[in-house]
Amino acid sequence: MFYHKKELQFDAKPDRPDPVFAKKLQEVIGGQYGEMSVAMQYLFQGWNTRGNEQYKDLILDTGTEEIGHVEMLATMVARLLDKAPVQAQEEAAKDPVIGAVMGDMNPHHAIVSGIGAAPENSVGVPWNAGYIVSSGNLLADMRANLNAESQGRLQVARLYEMTDDRGVKELLSFLLARDTMHQNQWIAAIKELEAKEGVIVPSTVPADWEATEFSHQLINFSEGNDSEKLDFVGKQAPDGAANFEYVSKPVSHGEKPVLNPAPSYMHNTPPNEDKMS
Amino acid sequence: MFYHKKELQFDAKPDRPDPVFAKKLQEVIGGQYGEMSVAMQYLFQGWNTRGNEQYKDLILDTGTEEIGHVEMLATMVARLLDKAPVQAQEEAAKDPVIGAVMGDMNPHHAIVSGIGAAPENSVGVPWNAGYIVSSGNLLADMRANLNAESQGRLQVARLYEMTDDRGVKELLSFLLARDTMHQNQWIAAIKELEAKEGVIVPSTVPADWEATEFSHQLINFSEGNDSEKLDFVGKQAPDGAANFEYVSKPVSHGEKPVLNPAPSYMHNTPPNEDKMS
Amino acid sequence: MFYHKKELQFDAKPDRPDPVFAKKLQEVIGGQYGEMSVAMQYLFQGWNTRGNEQYKDLILDTGTEEIGHVEMLATMVARLLDKAPVQAQEEAAKDPVIGAVMGDMNPHHAIVSGIGAAPENSVGVPWNAGYIVSSGNLLADMRANLNAESQGRLQVARLYEMTDDRGVKELLSFLLARDTMHQNQWIAAIKELEAKEGVIVPSTVPADWEATEFSHQLINFSEGNDSEKLDFVGKQAPDGAANFEYVSKPVSHGEKPVLNPAPSYMHNTPPNEDKMS
Amino acid sequence: MFYHKKELQFDAKPDRPDPVFAKKLQEVIGGQYGEMSVAMQYLFQGWNTRGNEQYKDLILDTGTEEIGHVEMLATMVARLLDKAPVQAQEEAAKDPVIGAVMGDMNPHHAIVSGIGAAPENSVGVPWNAGYIVSSGNLLADMRANLNAESQGRLQVARLYEMTDDRGVKELLSFLLARDTMHQNQWIAAIKELEAKEGVIVPSTVPADWEATEFSHQLINFSEGNDSEKLDFVGKQAPDGAANFEYVSKPVSHGEKPVLNPAPSYMHNTPPNEDKMS
Amino acid sequence: MFYHKKELQFDAKPDRPDPVFAKKLQEVIGGQYGEMSVAMQYLFQGWNTRGNEQYKDLILDTGTEEIGHVEMLATMVARLLDKAPVQAQEEAAKDPVIGAVMGDMNPHHAIVSGIGAAPENSVGVPWNAGYIVSSGNLLADMRANLNAESQGRLQVARLYEMTDDRGVKELLSFLLARDTMHQNQWIAAIKELEAKEGVIVPSTVPADWEATEFSHQLINFSEGNDSEKLDFVGKQAPDGAANFEYVSKPVSHGEKPVLNPAPSYMHNTPPNEDKMS
Amino acid sequence: MFYHKKELQFDAKPDRPDPVFAKKLQEVIGGQYGEMSVAMQYLFQGWNTRGNEQYKDLILDTGTEEIGHVEMLATMVARLLDKAPVQAQEEAAKDPVIGAVMGDMNPHHAIVSGIGAAPENSVGVPWNAGYIVSSGNLLADMRANLNAESQGRLQVARLYEMTDDRGVKELLSFLLARDTMHQNQWIAAIKELEAKEGVIVPSTVPADWEATEFSHQLINFSEGNDSEKLDFVGKQAPDGAANFEYVSKPVSHGEKPVLNPAPSYMHNTPPNEDKMS
Ligand SMILES: [Ca+2]
Ligand SMILES: [Ca+2]
Ligand SMILES: [Ca+2]
Ligand SMILES: [Ca+2]
Ligand SMILES: [Ca+2]
Ligand SMILES: [Ca+2]
Repeated sequence: MFYHKKELQFDAKPDRPDPVFAKKLQEVIGGQYGEMSVAMQYLFQGWNTRGNEQYKDLILDTGTEEIGHVEMLATMVARLLDKAPVQAQEEAAKDPVIGAVMGDMNPHHAIVSGIGAAPENSVGVPWNAGYIVSSGNLLADMRANLNAESQGRLQVARLYEMTDDRGVKELLSFLLARDTMHQNQWIAAIKELEAKEGVIVPSTVPADWEATEFSHQLINFSEGNDSEKLDFVGKQAPDGAANFEYVSKPVSHGEKPVLNPAPSYMHNTPPNEDKMS
Repeated sequence: MFYHKKELQFDAKPDRPDPVFAKKLQEVIGGQYGEMSVAMQYLFQGWNTRGNEQYKDLILDTGTEEIGHVEMLATMVARLLDKAPVQAQEEAAKDPVIGAVMGDMNPHHAIVSGIGAAPENSVGVPWNAGYIVSSGNLLADMRANLNAESQGRLQVARLYEMTDDRGVKELLSFLLARDTMHQNQWIAAIKELEAKEGVIVPSTVPADWEATEFSHQLINFSEGNDSEKLDFVGKQAPDGAANFEYVSKPVSHGEKPVLNPAPSYMHNTPPNEDKMS
Repeated sequence: MFYHKKELQFDAKPDRPDPVFAKKLQEVIGGQYGEMSVAMQYLFQGWNTRGNEQYKDLILDTGTEEIGHVEMLATMVARLLDKAPVQAQEEAAKDPVIGAVMGDMNPHHAIVSGIGAAPENSVGVPWNAGYIVSSGNLLADMRANLNAESQGRLQVARLYEMTDDRGVKELLSFLLARDTMHQNQWIAAIKELEAKEGVIVPSTVPADWEATEFSHQLINFSEGNDSEKLDFVGKQAPDGAANFEYVSKPVSHGEKPVLNPAPSYMHNTPPNEDKMS
Repeated sequence: MFYHKKELQFDAKPDRPDPVFAKKLQEVIGGQYGEMSVAMQYLFQGWNTRGNEQYKDLILDTGTEEIGHVEMLATMVARLLDKAPVQAQEEAAKDPVIGAVMGDMNPHHAIVSGIGAAPENSVGVPWNAGYIVSSGNLLADMRANLNAESQGRLQVARLYEMTDDRGVKELLSFLLARDTMHQNQWIAAIKELEAKEGVIVPSTVPADWEATEFSHQLINFSEGNDSEKLDFVGKQAPDGAANFEYVSKPVSHGEKPVLNPAPSYMHNTPPNEDKMS
Repeated sequence: MFYHKKELQFDAKPDRPDPVFAKKLQEVIGGQYGEMSVAMQYLFQGWNTRGNEQYKDLILDTGTEEIGHVEMLATMVARLLDKAPVQAQEEAAKDPVIGAVMGDMNPHHAIVSGIGAAPENSVGVPWNAGYIVSSGNLLADMRANLNAESQGRLQVARLYEMTDDRGVKELLSFLLARDTMHQNQWIAAIKELEAKEGVIVPSTVPADWEATEFSHQLINFSEGNDSEKLDFVGKQAPDGAANFEYVSKPVSHGEKPVLNPAPSYMHNTPPNEDKMS
Repeated sequence: MFYHKKELQFDAKPDRPDPVFAKKLQEVIGGQYGEMSVAMQYLFQGWNTRGNEQYKDLILDTGTEEIGHVEMLATMVARLLDKAPVQAQEEAAKDPVIGAVMGDMNPHHAIVSGIGAAPENSVGVPWNAGYIVSSGNLLADMRANLNAESQGRLQVARLYEMTDDRGVKELLSFLLARDTMHQNQWIAAIKELEAKEGVIVPSTVPADWEATEFSHQLINFSEGNDSEKLDFVGKQAPDGAANFEYVSKPVSHGEKPVLNPAPSYMHNTPPNEDKMS
């Protein structure tokens, strides 16, 4: 069950309206690695966690915080759109700068959301749940989470470079910090889980299920052996089971596949027996 | 530039037709973490890599291999659909087992693809590029890759449990092995990059951009302090910059946001000045 | 800012595992009118509300509750999947009922989510934000909300019919009640807003912007005049501005459109001047 | 069965080319609440209506009209794109206004549709059927329709503000009028249905299916009791079954959910029995 | 402008309810090549046609007919769902055949659409406009249309094989015939356009824009020269400009691409100057 | 199995950075008819081909080449983004041209991909597999392929018009040539298949399955008989089975459909027996 507190976790007011930056900021609200993604990913992971209660708590806490991050960013977008020259036909016709700004904003901010935030990314594509994962395997999901916070912080850093509005930068500085914390916590949890289970997910696959002769081969699928110079080649692999082996020329372990003709009730092209076989 | 060799990298023929398993196997072809995802993710990452040529090679090699994994799985799906009782109306009416099988297969396999594989997941949702990422930051992307191979191998292991067809299991044993290798290689690369850059992505954010007082706080957004018992609480965080600090009661660092009324040309609801303020 | 309380708002445990019903229940989690939709719709509406603070509170309260509804349903799905015969190859081969159940469940529940809930609908399509709206106009959005709660309660009622599990029915009885409340509250709010603004959204369009001669015409676009018998025909329209007028034969107020040929740099088909004009 | 009449229902020619407005106008063609949505929503509702023939007629008539609205808008987009400076490289380089216009138009209008309308919204996202509903319950669907016409007319009003082209405004004035009519007719139909069935959808749920103690509670999920001041609190709810009751502190009616560990064949993280329980 | 006639263009009543076939039939309503696709594709093409009025008429006529095909199929789906055992819990528990049928139907037909047709395909994915094209180039679009009618008729033929219901087969026999006609007409139109313009789309590209040395090379990107045995190799190409030339070993006409390092404000991984170059 | 060669099939370096053109060029990478579409379409078709080995080879060769086309275009996008003024806040504020360019580029190129190519189209919509088809029927699929290459070359020609960068034009000249070749080869293959099977897909439908009285009727669904003047009317249809017959007034061969009321457990609106029947 959830509660709402009216105050924002952190907020900062922009120095001035900037509808073009509002459009860009949507990426970290409703983009692939925006706050909607981490909020939903962590909540579903938490709800699905079975028998690891402390991790469950950590994940749900973080997911709950992230809903509040969507809130902060949505509020910032609303403020950046405030007093923006959406309507100014005449000025736009006269002043190319105003015209360009109006053309560069997300039309949804004017037509659909009424100068409010939208659940979509910086090009206007609606958020979808194909971005997120909750697998039931904690180590796999912690890696998903570490990736999400890494991509997310990278995007925040780039946005930080793209504005000189002090208020916006202040909000982004808070997000940078929380993404640092979230990377830290997922790394710590990954270390704990790897220490217990080993580094290969899932740890529960019996050795005889796996064609282990292929489990440590770095196969060179391109001309030239540059990748052989990578430091780790020839050294022990992270799973400790063998050394990395460099295969400079890939070998095919299969045949050329020839499929049976389709049954007539499929109405596929009949096979050309005379010429094609 | 790419070449094709007619032989499969590895193949195995199924013992018998199984259109219901063919439907499930689609998950690792065209699902969020299927082979189409890793193929496309690695290729775009490789093409976008700037100035780290050995990593670029490694990534492109792996992407090239993954196209061949789609090929192996597509061939397996085609074989599992071969001689399946798609049409057998009369038998189905008489025999509930046949009827159930026909009802459980993916209708696309019969109606759209002509007993061939489809670029979609196990419920029939088409693959889309919102699943993948290529960010230009290698450490971020290696984490994305490690996640993808972890989720992917987990799904292969589950599919392995869901069939007793020896040929299918043999193919899956090869995929388990290659996913082991790919997890190993991305972990090795992550270690190299972290050793050079540090563990927080991106490593290039100056300290004064970040509200560092929030960078190590584990904030408890739920009732009860269970998560405080996590082993890493109080210990040094992975970035080495501070210890994890437990905040048992979250504090709001912002105000209750009150937005300005919308301009009249937005046609939003006029503010209710009398009663609402 | 949001908090989480570990206890569910309401819960009930299912009598027995039922993975097929778990698949169906996904509709009210991640479907067009599932709880993810109302949660996200209300939160974005609340964050975007300008100058109507009591409505803003009401909307955010309701959105916050709805996140807890996703939580209750996700928990129910996890429980319905518990101890379900996902793996039972041998039994399935022998027992058509078990085989059918395994074929009828959502493959994502076994392969992707690890017997947990997924952010998708009853056919496995991921939730997307194209389902929701936040327009900045309260009357418009209250109508969206009333519609969402109406469709949602209808779906819950149908699901209630489709199971005889007492625990599941108990949870659904709670959702029926809350959807009753939410319909009640949005109707009450709509009445308030209509009393103040009038029934036509947006109320702020000046009369001379509108071709008012068409604002009350029920135009009969099909053969036969059955729709003329509707009770409201000929009576005063809800906006009070005129009576409904029945137009039994639609008149075209435009010309046949003839477009200019495309410029040559578009590489469209050149117009056939000789024969087509 | 449908017929086409070459003349448009209403048309107006734009004063001048305006590819940037053409992009914006796409919102009411292929956006969430564009004419494609209402056309498809009404047609599917009409085709699915069972045993209420006059409503069926009304719905199908309106759906048929809406196809003609797509036609009018598609024609307007084609005219706004006519003679637009898509190609003018040299001028664009010299003249920032032309350059900005070319950058602001939808690239699909130049590259994909050949200066014609596209079945997509103002940011270029293709229309999809997840926008629409046909539920078989007329009262629910009339509410969906009223919402669609409210959001649609709001968007048309905003577009009216964003142009000063008289021809475009004339077309929008017709759409404003028809959306007024369609709001009027759906309100009238809703009143008829509510008079007969009651206001809660679906009306056919027996009282003993519902946990009615929760059917009239306005639960305050946030700090502060502002929403208690709403006029309708304490008064009779629209369903007439009880008064609205204000619950200032939400109570949890469930337990903290603890899920069983996953079976080993799921390969989820094994539960940490020592430390986590 | 459009009209509706209440009678169907063609109809046939099914012999008996069949919700599983209703699910499959959705493919030709809302699938990639269903009737929604051809209806929308032809209408947009017609509305966008410039200066070729007879083709415009032909295309709009066909599009108008196709809306009526959606209508016929939606009606058939509604009838196939009529009296289907959606609710029968007890019987399902007892009778595996009924249970299997209930599990195999599209849950949307019961939960969302109220035993009516839905705007989605046979696996439940909503129709989207990414399926269709209207390019402004008639020859390109006629080829799109011929493809759509070919794929569509193929799917209808497969559905014909999958049922033994005489009423359903009768309806499908009508669709087979109309798809024959539509293939015929698009082939005829293609021949006319090719005779006038030549076979390569677009015909308006000047010869000196094209690297014509590559315009007739069949490049063998795989091992083995099987494709050299194709009859047309060595013969005159359809454009009449040259003979097909077989290139048994692909040559690279480019260099290995080495990209510049990203600017520091992108926060990409810094290039490893020591080791990687 | 696939190999990678580091050299590009063809490349050309742009004269100067152009992030706005980079955005447009994305259409032919990740758009409906971009190189990702043809690559994936041909590969799936090839893998699914049964019993027509030379066609299988041709299709797989072409698919393999197309992956290399994605590579060339991705490299070009990366180069066009190189040294682009993404960050230049101050200059942008001063110089409207720079400001406009920054506003017109795809925000994903700066925020998400780190000045690299993205798997999406020119408006930023991610590529999805709903664009492609592999049906198992070669003639149907060759028509899909011819359409794809026609639409694709048309888009390349339009892009050629939209830039005056010699390097970009040089790359496009290569793509124009390969699309010429691919149109040529699919036309040649279509002719071979049509000669063997006939022109109507699928060729295997028995005559008595089809309501052949409708197989050659050009039905005029609009007012006016303009389409009767098309040259092919009255002449022999391409299938040789009959002449095209013009039906100037469409006849309904069905009844007005009246559906049974829904069962009560569907909770649809109860039929209004008094007034509606
Ligand atoms: Ca965050
Ligand atoms: Ca793989
Ligand atoms: Ca709810
Ligand atoms: Ca309308
Ligand atoms: Ca048709
Ligand atoms: Ca190509």
